Amino acid sequence: MLEWLKEKAYISNIMLQKYNLVTFTWGNASEIDRDSGMFAIKPSGIEYEKLRINDMVLIDLDGNKIEGKYNPSSDTETHLELYKSFNNIGGIVHTHSSFATSWAQSGKDIPCYGTTHADYIYGKVPCVRNLTKKEVDDGYEKNIGKLIVEYFKDKDYNSTPAILCKNHGPFTWGENSYDALHNAVVLEEIAKMAIMTKLINNNVRSIPNIILDKHYFRKHGKNAYYGQINI
Amino acid sequence: MLEWLKEKAYISNIMLQKYNLVTFTWGNASEIDRDSGMFAIKPSGIEYEKLRINDMVLIDLDGNKIEGKYNPSSDTETHLELYKSFNNIGGIVHTHSSFATSWAQSGKDIPCYGTTHADYIYGKVPCVRNLTKKEVDDGYEKNIGKLIVEYFKDKDYNSTPAILCKNHGPFTWGENSYDALHNAVVLEEIAKMAIMTKLINNNVRSIPNIILDKHYFRKHGKNAYYGQINI
Amino acid sequence: MLEWLKEKAYISNIMLQKYNLVTFTWGNASEIDRDSGMFAIKPSGIEYEKLRINDMVLIDLDGNKIEGKYNPSSDTETHLELYKSFNNIGGIVHTHSSFATSWAQSGKDIPCYGTTHADYIYGKVPCVRNLTKKEVDDGYEKNIGKLIVEYFKDKDYNSTPAILCKNHGPFTWGENSYDALHNAVVLEEIAKMAIMTKLINNNVRSIPNIILDKHYFRKHGKNAYYGQINI
Amino acid sequence: MLEWLKEKAYISNIMLQKYNLVTFTWGNASEIDRDSGMFAIKPSGIEYEKLRINDMVLIDLDGNKIEGKYNPSSDTETHLELYKSFNNIGGIVHTHSSFATSWAQSGKDIPCYGTTHADYIYGKVPCVRNLTKKEVDDGYEKNIGKLIVEYFKDKDYNSTPAILCKNHGPFTWGENSYDALHNAVVLEEIAKMAIMTKLINNNVRSIPNIILDKHYFRKHGKNAYYGQINI
Repeated sequence: MLEWLKEKAYISNIMLQKYNLVTFTWGNASEIDRDSGMFAIKPSGIEYEKLRINDMVLIDLDGNKIEGKYNPSSDTETHLELYKSFNNIGGIVHTHSSFATSWAQSGKDIPCYGTTHADYIYGKVPCVRNLTKKEVDDGYEKNIGKLIVEYFKDKDYNSTPAILCKNHGPFTWGENSYDALHNAVVLEEIAKMAIMTKLINNNVRSIPNIILDKHYFRKHGKNAYYGQINI
Repeated sequence: MLEWLKEKAYISNIMLQKYNLVTFTWGNASEIDRDSGMFAIKPSGIEYEKLRINDMVLIDLDGNKIEGKYNPSSDTETHLELYKSFNNIGGIVHTHSSFATSWAQSGKDIPCYGTTHADYIYGKVPCVRNLTKKEVDDGYEKNIGKLIVEYFKDKDYNSTPAILCKNHGPFTWGENSYDALHNAVVLEEIAKMAIMTKLINNNVRSIPNIILDKHYFRKHGKNAYYGQINI
Repeated sequence: MLEWLKEKAYISNIMLQKYNLVTFTWGNASEIDRDSGMFAIKPSGIEYEKLRINDMVLIDLDGNKIEGKYNPSSDTETHLELYKSFNNIGGIVHTHSSFATSWAQSGKDIPCYGTTHADYIYGKVPCVRNLTKKEVDDGYEKNIGKLIVEYFKDKDYNSTPAILCKNHGPFTWGENSYDALHNAVVLEEIAKMAIMTKLINNNVRSIPNIILDKHYFRKHGKNAYYGQINI
Repeated sequence: MLEWLKEKAYISNIMLQKYNLVTFTWGNASEIDRDSGMFAIKPSGIEYEKLRINDMVLIDLDGNKIEGKYNPSSDTETHLELYKSFNNIGGIVHTHSSFATSWAQSGKDIPCYGTTHADYIYGKVPCVRNLTKKEVDDGYEKNIGKLIVEYFKDKDYNSTPAILCKNHGPFTWGENSYDALHNAVVLEEIAKMAIMTKLINNNVRSIPNIILDKHYFRKHGKNAYYGQINI
């Protein structure tokens, strides 16, 4: 059932390792098929070295396990909330990658300091607050998802495909799981450079809006001209 | 004699290199068989490239060498003290891994800044003091072990399977040598992220207790639900 | 047409990866043939893994595409301006390498702190300002080139073969594309060491002129004696 | 002539790359045969990938080239001065390794912050001053050597087998070129950890003398017991 979907999600999970975004089992990728309303996600706590395509777990948008011999990722409820509210995303990635997680631990947004960031993310990468005791007790992973959705209720999640959860780590998303993985790599690199940038110049300011706009819209939207759009 | 034990300890020693935790011979792993009361440990100063299973040294809980053509690790007395007092541990790892050792050199505990840490270690990683002249002269390596044991006399060493020795480096332990190795990898990664976290936000606080509890007990104890516990 | 030129530019592009200077497609190298007045440059947004020699795009010094099925790099106009004004350079490299880009994001020149730097670059690596709104609107990439040229109107671009564009990243150049690549590697390494140098000693000063002169002219000019000049 | 010596020096040069101590040609290793009074050293500016055993250059203790088709390393005069004055060393290594060079650029000694350092180097790694104009003009490389020798006129170069030259980089030495290489690896690692140690705790102090003594003499001198001394 949905073998192609499990394969795509599987490959994105495996590539978390290739891009040095995960230690042990500290990450997961999922991909959704909007037609059937199901997403494939990594099973919980299975080592990447042992992971096989058929180990992927299928979940529907009510949170039911449809297929899979393993328990799904402990973060499944977070993925579910994002898929339910962010209608046009197709993939989600969660990691504990070193630099992005350090920003999350610090409780600070990552300012947009340069065009590397502006090429992918339109402005800061926000860091959302810790959950309250009630939110933790009432469904920790689900409420992380709800908090992220709440943050974007009046903002565009497509132009900010990444968020930091305080004291925890990053989530990224995109058109499919590979795109979400791509954004996780971007996030880790800009998180690394943002630390160095602050160490060099503690009074550094964010990129001017004119440059932010130029770079973001050079790659996104109807006037984009980066890449091979016409072929 | 106890070939399986020597093999397990050997593999954990070799994997110290795979996980980039050691330079040259700066580390050692051991594993104990509680039935026979003997542990297998790396010989002192032998390069990992030349290490063979049969080079492992067997030591009993009185500190006698039972088997092995080489001298055991110079840290053998420290391992011995931990095995004698921490009754339910099965493996110990010592390294000079860069980030954990930098914290040890600084003389500071590693605060728990995030869920990566909380998933494995319930609270700070403590840094214990230097030995006194008397302690150094009376048996340096043995007294390092005694100092660690003293620290845990009223605390749970199972939920804090790692410690830093000031101006020296880390020791970790676990159910077996692989588990101790796993904790050494975790420690190095959280030590790295904790430095970055402080550099980003010098006023950062430790993770709230509610999140610490949630993550630690999501993976440990009778209510754990992370991973594939039911299969 | 100009197969040898495309091959040289291709190899330099591929080597950006080997030297860990690029993530995804974040960089480009070009090489010019001064006889025909044409340069070969990477196509825009093509992954290095898929890049082939015949994908390279040929551009003349009026900015016309002479050959190639793809759009040239989005930074082509910057390369063009440099080739038009820096008469004796043969190759250009642009990257978003982590440490050099962090300096660019910080808006600071990289001071010359040591002989590693002085061996290749005679004094600081300058960081030029952001473009104005008018400059962005009137031809962003072309005006980046013009700004770099303007900086060197009364300075020697041969002895400073590297520059940082504020909030963006570095450009380097040289006798050919491999030489420009070589300078990009040097720049990344000195950018990394300059951050560490400042972290160790926040009051550090630049290298004394006598040592700067000694090292730069040990490798450059008619009195150079480094290497195998006589064979 | 002295093929074994050239081979040993060659291998140590090649291993500079294996241990990530050099970029391009930024380093050199040499080894001396005290019987013949000749040392083998890397030729100047030859890439490691192209270096062959027979490219090594033989130099006598008067500084004459005895054999070799290439010019010797530009640092040959520095090696020569050290061999002439440090009677019981057999090998020398010079690199621009990132962390040790950053300390040299900062002009600061590397304090002994831990046992990793104390196991190999008895106290701080000193950073010697820049040369004066006269010293630069009268024989730059020779005078670097003389400055290092001058530093040790009333100190033991055997227990401090490493030094930093301000704004330049490190030299290390040892019983043979492999031992000098080993010390270069140690130096880079302790330089890295010393930066991190200071970042964690800006008020950190050096290791207590009692621990310094314990670790240094656990590995050196007649009471050493680390390793397999008795077999």
